[in-house]
Amino acid sequence: MAVKIKTNDKHIQALAEIVGSPRLILFHQEDLIAYDCDGFTLHKHLPKAVVFPKDTQEVSRLVRYCSDNDLPFLARGAGTGLSGGAIPVNGEVIISLVKMKRLLSVDFENRRAVVEPGYVNLKLTNSISDKGYYYAPDPSSQYCCTIGGNVAENAGGAHCLKYGVTTNHILGLEVVLPNGDIIDIGQNGIQDAPGYDLLGLLTGSEGTLGIVTKITVRILKNPEAKQTVLAYFDKVIDGSQAVSDIISAGIVPAALEMMDKTAIEGVEAAAFPVGHPKDIEAVLLIEVDGISAGIEEQINQILEVCKNRNVREVRAARDEQERGRWWANRKTGFGAMGAISADYLVQDGVIPRSKLPEVLSRINKISEESGLRIANIFHAGDGNLHPLVLFDARIPGQSEKALAAGSACLQVCADVGGTITGEHGVGIEKKEEMRFVFNDEEIIAQTNVRDVFNTKNLLNAGKLFPSPGRCVEIKKEMKAAAAQ
Amino acid sequence: MAVKIKTNDKHIQALAEIVGSPRLILFHQEDLIAYDCDGFTLHKHLPKAVVFPKDTQEVSRLVRYCSDNDLPFLARGAGTGLSGGAIPVNGEVIISLVKMKRLLSVDFENRRAVVEPGYVNLKLTNSISDKGYYYAPDPSSQYCCTIGGNVAENAGGAHCLKYGVTTNHILGLEVVLPNGDIIDIGQNGIQDAPGYDLLGLLTGSEGTLGIVTKITVRILKNPEAKQTVLAYFDKVIDGSQAVSDIISAGIVPAALEMMDKTAIEGVEAAAFPVGHPKDIEAVLLIEVDGISAGIEEQINQILEVCKNRNVREVRAARDEQERGRWWANRKTGFGAMGAISADYLVQDGVIPRSKLPEVLSRINKISEESGLRIANIFHAGDGNLHPLVLFDARIPGQSEKALAAGSACLQVCADVGGTITGEHGVGIEKKEEMRFVFNDEEIIAQTNVRDVFNTKNLLNAGKLFPSPGRCVEIKKEMKAAAAQ
Repeated sequence: MAVKIKTNDKHIQALAEIVGSPRLILFHQEDLIAYDCDGFTLHKHLPKAVVFPKDTQEVSRLVRYCSDNDLPFLARGAGTGLSGGAIPVNGEVIISLVKMKRLLSVDFENRRAVVEPGYVNLKLTNSISDKGYYYAPDPSSQYCCTIGGNVAENAGGAHCLKYGVTTNHILGLEVVLPNGDIIDIGQNGIQDAPGYDLLGLLTGSEGTLGIVTKITVRILKNPEAKQTVLAYFDKVIDGSQAVSDIISAGIVPAALEMMDKTAIEGVEAAAFPVGHPKDIEAVLLIEVDGISAGIEEQINQILEVCKNRNVREVRAARDEQERGRWWANRKTGFGAMGAISADYLVQDGVIPRSKLPEVLSRINKISEESGLRIANIFHAGDGNLHPLVLFDARIPGQSEKALAAGSACLQVCADVGGTITGEHGVGIEKKEEMRFVFNDEEIIAQTNVRDVFNTKNLLNAGKLFPSPGRCVEIKKEMKAAAAQ
Repeated sequence: MAVKIKTNDKHIQALAEIVGSPRLILFHQEDLIAYDCDGFTLHKHLPKAVVFPKDTQEVSRLVRYCSDNDLPFLARGAGTGLSGGAIPVNGEVIISLVKMKRLLSVDFENRRAVVEPGYVNLKLTNSISDKGYYYAPDPSSQYCCTIGGNVAENAGGAHCLKYGVTTNHILGLEVVLPNGDIIDIGQNGIQDAPGYDLLGLLTGSEGTLGIVTKITVRILKNPEAKQTVLAYFDKVIDGSQAVSDIISAGIVPAALEMMDKTAIEGVEAAAFPVGHPKDIEAVLLIEVDGISAGIEEQINQILEVCKNRNVREVRAARDEQERGRWWANRKTGFGAMGAISADYLVQDGVIPRSKLPEVLSRINKISEESGLRIANIFHAGDGNLHPLVLFDARIPGQSEKALAAGSACLQVCADVGGTITGEHGVGIEKKEEMRFVFNDEEIIAQTNVRDVFNTKNLLNAGKLFPSPGRCVEIKKEMKAAAAQ
């Protein structure tokens, strides 16, 4: 049965036939504009078309069609990614997974749930919280981002300090490979399943190795109790030292967040102000959770540590409402920058915790030299830093300056033994910065892996790895040597 | 400067030159016999030679020599592996890493240590315990197995229920690739490092993708307190149900071990008897750790759960001595089978926790049908089962019967949604059983990955994957299709 759409493009017609309805394909320019970028907005490209498959078989048929006809293609969830991983830089066919959004099953006894990739992160916790369970990875966009996208980017969140990032919560995946084959990987959560860890390999591969169509996740029992502490420091060095002291005391907080002066200015000017003083250099938000009996002791230890580090004011949340307000203030921190700046660029570096003071002072220097303000919001407990470069795209040259300042921040992270992304991925944004942390041989080891999955490199090409440079020659030499 | 050894074999001479001393190479048959198998003793093969490099550069030069001259080779640690991963089935050159056994550095502030691959697991904890730290993965062989071998097998242990297996504690690796190139992977412990997760891929790849020459591991702060409970159950069904109840109560024990009646008979006849009653069907050993304030509450909950499940006797350890005796009794459980049987075969399956009673009863049936006793010792908390098939190799046909019974146990695990290995690896022992859990496409996806690293398949060939069967044809078809 032919799907009736107005097009002379045989590929568009064929793709429409696969999804079976004119309402499940977009190909007019005015419809495609909404898909020309994701959460990283500094590059825009139109896709060839956007298709909305309803199940794994349709994804497989779409992929096989694209592969057989040499059409570039990529998968997209909610489009909240911050590094441009879903931008169709080659005019890709976008396979949108938003129609595959069911919660397929929950197995409380073995603590697993199975979801489709378009299922929204926060919905899972909402669906199981009445039984006392939740899903741990909590990116700030969790109210709208999809679990499929979280898998692609190996998303983190404030509570990953204690509970780990997405990869620590994925137990199994159904994947459509770039040739259309469907495989199951991960053996449903067995810690050390036989064979290679393809589950770990696919998770965080930024949509370059396959398209995930079903996800088995771990669900956790709600902690019996949780409590949050807020601490204001006049000096950032004292706040940083308190972070180290808390960890050294053997406490593993569920979350340990820091914001600096500029970030505080932003969050206090935006939707959820809570009255942070504007003259302090650092605020810490520290949450502990677990069995009730242990919480108070840990809170007391944390208060003690902060007092020993010249804290101006420190206290635990009075009630759940106050705790909720503090978190809303923090979780909307990126967007809050819009209240004090026309535009902002979020960066995402990682450093050893012990280097915090040094890195912050070097970022200050970058800010001074570029003439752009840089706010810092970060998951201090695990050293994941988010410098927010504030700029105004309407002023000629400022976008470029902001990108350069962001890149310089990442160079600082790499210099002190850290790396260029903690949770936002590389995408197109940080491709060239991969060279800050990998040499040619190391990049080749990775692109070789991509090439065995993504044989024709039609799936999300041009992402994640730097432009080849010397790698191409080295690969040729290696092939010649192997052929001897 | 030529190394003087008595050989006409130019390859042996060349390998000796690389390690630089006649004392660092073995090639006489009487010396090689010690290397004809590892902890899996049912297959034996002599290596061509055994070499003992002192550093990464020597490993690289040995590997390059083997690769250039088409000599099969493999790496070996302490040889405690239980699935035959270090057996030279192709007459390999064995690259023994036991001389590379240094603790290179410890960074308490950022909680990392760097070791060479031949460093013994337990030595690490012993070296840092005075500062209040330890290394979590604790395979029963930890007093002699090497961390390099742990990485190859992604080793587990009793405390992996709470703390995860080896892969959760590896932060970075230096790896010699099968062509001799040296790469660094893992970015030193950043949770979500950019690029593909090669660290996860290499960990547990059973020595088929590269040779690890340096390892950065996570170290943990000692828990403030720990306590262990012992519980005797007349009926295994009650013990199993208690396991589920403890987890459902939201407690995450550090360890949750079970032994059945035959296993108890063994451990009570061996070196560390503790007086377990012999007429019970199950003993549970349950350990909790964490901050002091919470321990007592958890112990009380556990006692309560056991009482609700008809426990015959349950109590917490009186003191550290008693706790130590209980663990010595459990940790020597495999070897203890030697006290009640001439030979034994350890199997290693994984099942969903909820299937415990069903699986145990099916294993009993396998035991009856084969006429061989089967003891069960297992990490009950994470469903990792170790059926120990007791047999006498001197009786013709019994070895084969034992292998068949072991394989049948794994088929049961696969049938209920589990898998064929939890921590011992596949090696040569369970190659064919891989088909219980992977179809052709899934095996091909894995061997394709192997082939990009191990291009000539000289490194530890013939391990981990089943004999090709239909995979060869499928691969040919795929290649032909890709070439079109």
